[in-house]
Amino acid sequence: MVKVGIVGGTGYTGVELLRLLARHPEVSVELITSRGEAGIRVDQIYPNLRGFYDLAFVAPDPAALSELDVVFFATPHGVAMEMAPALVAAGVRVIDLSADFRLKDPLLFQKWYGMPHSATDLLQEAVYGLPECNRAQIRQARLVAVPGCYPTAIQLGLLPLLEAKLVDERSLIADAKSGVSGAGRQGKIANLLCEVADSFKAYGVPGHRHLPEITAHLGQYLGRAAPDLTFVPHLAPMIRGIHATLYARLKDPAVQPDLQQLYAERYRDEPFVDLLPAGEHPETRSVRGANLCRLALHRPQGGDTLVVLSVIDNLVKGAAGQAIQNMNLCCGLPETSGLDAPALLP
Amino acid sequence: MVKVGIVGGTGYTGVELLRLLARHPEVSVELITSRGEAGIRVDQIYPNLRGFYDLAFVAPDPAALSELDVVFFATPHGVAMEMAPALVAAGVRVIDLSADFRLKDPLLFQKWYGMPHSATDLLQEAVYGLPECNRAQIRQARLVAVPGCYPTAIQLGLLPLLEAKLVDERSLIADAKSGVSGAGRQGKIANLLCEVADSFKAYGVPGHRHLPEITAHLGQYLGRAAPDLTFVPHLAPMIRGIHATLYARLKDPAVQPDLQQLYAERYRDEPFVDLLPAGEHPETRSVRGANLCRLALHRPQGGDTLVVLSVIDNLVKGAAGQAIQNMNLCCGLPETSGLDAPALLP
Amino acid sequence: MVKVGIVGGTGYTGVELLRLLARHPEVSVELITSRGEAGIRVDQIYPNLRGFYDLAFVAPDPAALSELDVVFFATPHGVAMEMAPALVAAGVRVIDLSADFRLKDPLLFQKWYGMPHSATDLLQEAVYGLPECNRAQIRQARLVAVPGCYPTAIQLGLLPLLEAKLVDERSLIADAKSGVSGAGRQGKIANLLCEVADSFKAYGVPGHRHLPEITAHLGQYLGRAAPDLTFVPHLAPMIRGIHATLYARLKDPAVQPDLQQLYAERYRDEPFVDLLPAGEHPETRSVRGANLCRLALHRPQGGDTLVVLSVIDNLVKGAAGQAIQNMNLCCGLPETSGLDAPALLP
Amino acid sequence: MVKVGIVGGTGYTGVELLRLLARHPEVSVELITSRGEAGIRVDQIYPNLRGFYDLAFVAPDPAALSELDVVFFATPHGVAMEMAPALVAAGVRVIDLSADFRLKDPLLFQKWYGMPHSATDLLQEAVYGLPECNRAQIRQARLVAVPGCYPTAIQLGLLPLLEAKLVDERSLIADAKSGVSGAGRQGKIANLLCEVADSFKAYGVPGHRHLPEITAHLGQYLGRAAPDLTFVPHLAPMIRGIHATLYARLKDPAVQPDLQQLYAERYRDEPFVDLLPAGEHPETRSVRGANLCRLALHRPQGGDTLVVLSVIDNLVKGAAGQAIQNMNLCCGLPETSGLDAPALLP
Repeated sequence: MVKVGIVGGTGYTGVELLRLLARHPEVSVELITSRGEAGIRVDQIYPNLRGFYDLAFVAPDPAALSELDVVFFATPHGVAMEMAPALVAAGVRVIDLSADFRLKDPLLFQKWYGMPHSATDLLQEAVYGLPECNRAQIRQARLVAVPGCYPTAIQLGLLPLLEAKLVDERSLIADAKSGVSGAGRQGKIANLLCEVADSFKAYGVPGHRHLPEITAHLGQYLGRAAPDLTFVPHLAPMIRGIHATLYARLKDPAVQPDLQQLYAERYRDEPFVDLLPAGEHPETRSVRGANLCRLALHRPQGGDTLVVLSVIDNLVKGAAGQAIQNMNLCCGLPETSGLDAPALLP
Repeated sequence: MVKVGIVGGTGYTGVELLRLLARHPEVSVELITSRGEAGIRVDQIYPNLRGFYDLAFVAPDPAALSELDVVFFATPHGVAMEMAPALVAAGVRVIDLSADFRLKDPLLFQKWYGMPHSATDLLQEAVYGLPECNRAQIRQARLVAVPGCYPTAIQLGLLPLLEAKLVDERSLIADAKSGVSGAGRQGKIANLLCEVADSFKAYGVPGHRHLPEITAHLGQYLGRAAPDLTFVPHLAPMIRGIHATLYARLKDPAVQPDLQQLYAERYRDEPFVDLLPAGEHPETRSVRGANLCRLALHRPQGGDTLVVLSVIDNLVKGAAGQAIQNMNLCCGLPETSGLDAPALLP
Repeated sequence: MVKVGIVGGTGYTGVELLRLLARHPEVSVELITSRGEAGIRVDQIYPNLRGFYDLAFVAPDPAALSELDVVFFATPHGVAMEMAPALVAAGVRVIDLSADFRLKDPLLFQKWYGMPHSATDLLQEAVYGLPECNRAQIRQARLVAVPGCYPTAIQLGLLPLLEAKLVDERSLIADAKSGVSGAGRQGKIANLLCEVADSFKAYGVPGHRHLPEITAHLGQYLGRAAPDLTFVPHLAPMIRGIHATLYARLKDPAVQPDLQQLYAERYRDEPFVDLLPAGEHPETRSVRGANLCRLALHRPQGGDTLVVLSVIDNLVKGAAGQAIQNMNLCCGLPETSGLDAPALLP
Repeated sequence: MVKVGIVGGTGYTGVELLRLLARHPEVSVELITSRGEAGIRVDQIYPNLRGFYDLAFVAPDPAALSELDVVFFATPHGVAMEMAPALVAAGVRVIDLSADFRLKDPLLFQKWYGMPHSATDLLQEAVYGLPECNRAQIRQARLVAVPGCYPTAIQLGLLPLLEAKLVDERSLIADAKSGVSGAGRQGKIANLLCEVADSFKAYGVPGHRHLPEITAHLGQYLGRAAPDLTFVPHLAPMIRGIHATLYARLKDPAVQPDLQQLYAERYRDEPFVDLLPAGEHPETRSVRGANLCRLALHRPQGGDTLVVLSVIDNLVKGAAGQAIQNMNLCCGLPETSGLDAPALLP
């Protein structure tokens, strides 16, 4: 059994890791930390886990963590970069769900996250944990930076187009809609049911931290200049789910690409990307609780603007599920282990 | 592998059976019927099942059904009583999620369901599938009548009090709240999002079909007169979940029963009943997607009125999950097989 | 024009007062206070009010408040009892939406609110602002204690039964369901959309502060011992609305009261109580945004247990609307002034 | 008093007309028709209207309708074009909320609505009822075609940019999100709470009927070729509200337009368009129940892509409220009459 620990386990990605790992056949969760809730049983905060874990939150203890095989960080940014170096040195595989190791450029990190990066060496070594791009490197990684939720949905939606160099990379648009769980489990007025239910709004239009992550990673992966993306996130009145509606203009309108075939081939062997038949529209509920990105492709009125619809569960393929997928790869387990349940619908 | 079929698979209990059975290690779903959707792939109506089933709906064919080990009926009332006798005669175990075999008295059935019962012999043989009452009989049953959703939540909440003869059985009250999926998947204006979201109402106060089921079964099980219950169902603006708030008056106020111990003992060995610590309040989301009834007990201000809080997921412990629990018992499988995933929260 | 001020205007009752007063033909809102948001424009926090008010929040200033005709307190408990005495002495009518003056007995206040009462003289003078009971006294009042939301729905539902002495007052039950706005506008994890959406729970079963308010007022008003009430509040996944389901047992089952006529007569002249035809079920959305209590009566199966369904909008008839109704009475204005718009449905 | 009638009053635009007209000081609703519900009281279907109308639905009677001053059509397409000619001939002002008179080109109508147009003469005379474009013509109109909900939000968001010829009109994008009430009040499975709550999806990406309405009207109004728009509508899990996120590319990136000033001047005198301060994000709830379009402008990262955020209540500024605004103009009443209440928030 792979022995794992979770640092910062009281948030929604923490409980989701526990929910998924409860059914993982080759993992044993040994400890889960929280400074604020130390001593409280996990199932007192998350009653859905009653009977599945006999654990209480503990204060983080580097010595105890270094005995584990794998440590997940489900912390705010700034924590993993402090603690990860010692763990990596001790031979622990680190799967970081926070933003600390997503941006290779420490200055870019500092610009968007407002603090200097304290582990720049490890930053260069860290592998961006999008298996559909980096599977081989992830298998060898000592430290994986799990992509953000928006970046996962948007990158998986755009990748085949960019790889095939079909579209104008100076005018990409990602109009993304997220459930409220993406904002985390903090006592903020802005996320009260009474503030967000039965309403809809954009936010962060001037600039969202996931924008540089998306473009920088795509540029690195493709080995060319980062594309130019207009990214508008929105808050939808629902718990889970991201729906990214992606717009790209054909470089050469005379070209008539077979998009459906392009995507089908690109993702043929991917266990967690599902391309819908032509003409369909994915619903976020169709991936609720599942580690899956579901895509559909459109070219309205046969025009120059392509539309890609991409949905994920922000807490699963956008966080905890993808983290486990990365762990499986790192640890030599079957990639789908513990991630094979259907979505919950209705 | 146990070969199973589902008759009437396009409703919410149908998709929920498929979702749960997809992970059941000892079951193979061989066919699923629908007159209206014959020829349509299951995953076209339920995209969460893409990749899990390579099945299309077929018109019901008695010959094909009689080759199976188990047939679930997820049909409106009136269908199972027509088809079940031949299947039972052919040696198929029948698990009926509809109301056809829940009321032993055919006249009571006719009064509440508006049609005569057409299989009165089998009605007498049918076992009421509440394992917490009838486990031994279920193991031997050829035909199981799966309890309704409200009856499951209410009976499990009241049973220990009634068995211990602690309360006045002439004045029980069940104030129950249900998510909208309890109303089924039919194109009715009353269940549109715009009609029920952000609102709350009681319905069926003059009389709901689950009332006779609750009281008749409790009376039979306890071997005495049916208790007198005031049952008020309500529609809550949510997809899944039943919350039953149960009120009972102590027969002898001088008695100071240890309710917490009473319930703990009654349900000690039950895998799917979970008693919360004293003073807590269960949330329906804590059982979302899980085959579980979660209970909490209160005696406000130390008065004579006891309050039992009982929550289930109406589609799981209130329907498809309980049906599989019954199938497991009938077929000699471990009772929890396929039913061991935690609830989805948030 | 009646000059009014609002103390503590950043919560949901504050914005609701402003929304309703924006259309009141005889009122001018002169100032609104908030310590935390002083200097911020009202319409920056509440964009629905853009164009209706040219006001910013100010820190509370007793001198400025004492120049007004009416001051509403939309504050947490403990504030009004400090500030109201001076205002009353200065001839200002005080309409207190908080709990400070609802319980005549200062010890009862201290028991439930955890602080001694600091204005016990004024407490005796204060009038409980339920116009359907106390209209004449409200017209003369210098200080009105606006009832809580649950107490409004429950008292209006039970009053005719209690006045007619038809039911056993030792066994009343109020099973009440509230939208989340009843919990106020504070940054608490418990009220995040992700914690309460698509779920249902009871809370405060051991004891809720509205319980003594309900029973003490009913006892005072009826001139006899306070009734014995079991009160179980629940949180429903919606923004606004209270649905109280009330249970009472007939004292003499042989009596066949005409409940429909009893209630129709009791509330014939009440502009803000609406009795539905026999057999119907009120929805909370039917009073969304309106100053109205809508009732329906049932006697299931002709038994001894009566069921009264009572709905209000907790922010209107349960708070801001009722406060304006009281102000209208105090100030000699038409009782319905500013309160005559239909509910918003759907 | 202006005597009005409503044809097809059982849908959501019908009840919304009644809600708003209940407070209109110069209008009397004389009759409301419904074939299906003839004889049923209006307040039985819409309990929020109890006490406001003493009306029952009647079958449509041309003679009775021709006695009125104004007739609103809140019908499916195909009805108004049959009935309007006789009414117009009789001197009745017709305000059509359906699609029948929105597209000037009868072939375009036939293409998108699947039926030939039966009143092509009147079609040419009809005035497109967007007062922010056509106020003068509306004042003289005998027949007004009230714009669709998406077209209202999108056109008001794009107009100033197009009038100023600032953007490339071959690559406009409208990513629009609608509440479920936009789908009407029909018993369709697709709009059940259980199908759309807690989920998000695009629909109609290959082509939506509002697309030709938007582009054709903009072209006519601007007197040049219709712009090329990619329009992707989405269904959001809420009752009311449209949020249109509009993308346009500057024609000349060297130009640095002051968008905020451009829009402020364009809409300075418009009572029902509200421009938010720079950098803000409008919420749909801020216009819930109000006849208002609220806009905000962004130019992310100072790039070439402009982002306009536009919100309306689809049932008010997107339907019934705009219809009344048109009626006010037609009838020489103050344009804001009956439309001056703040939005309901929370």
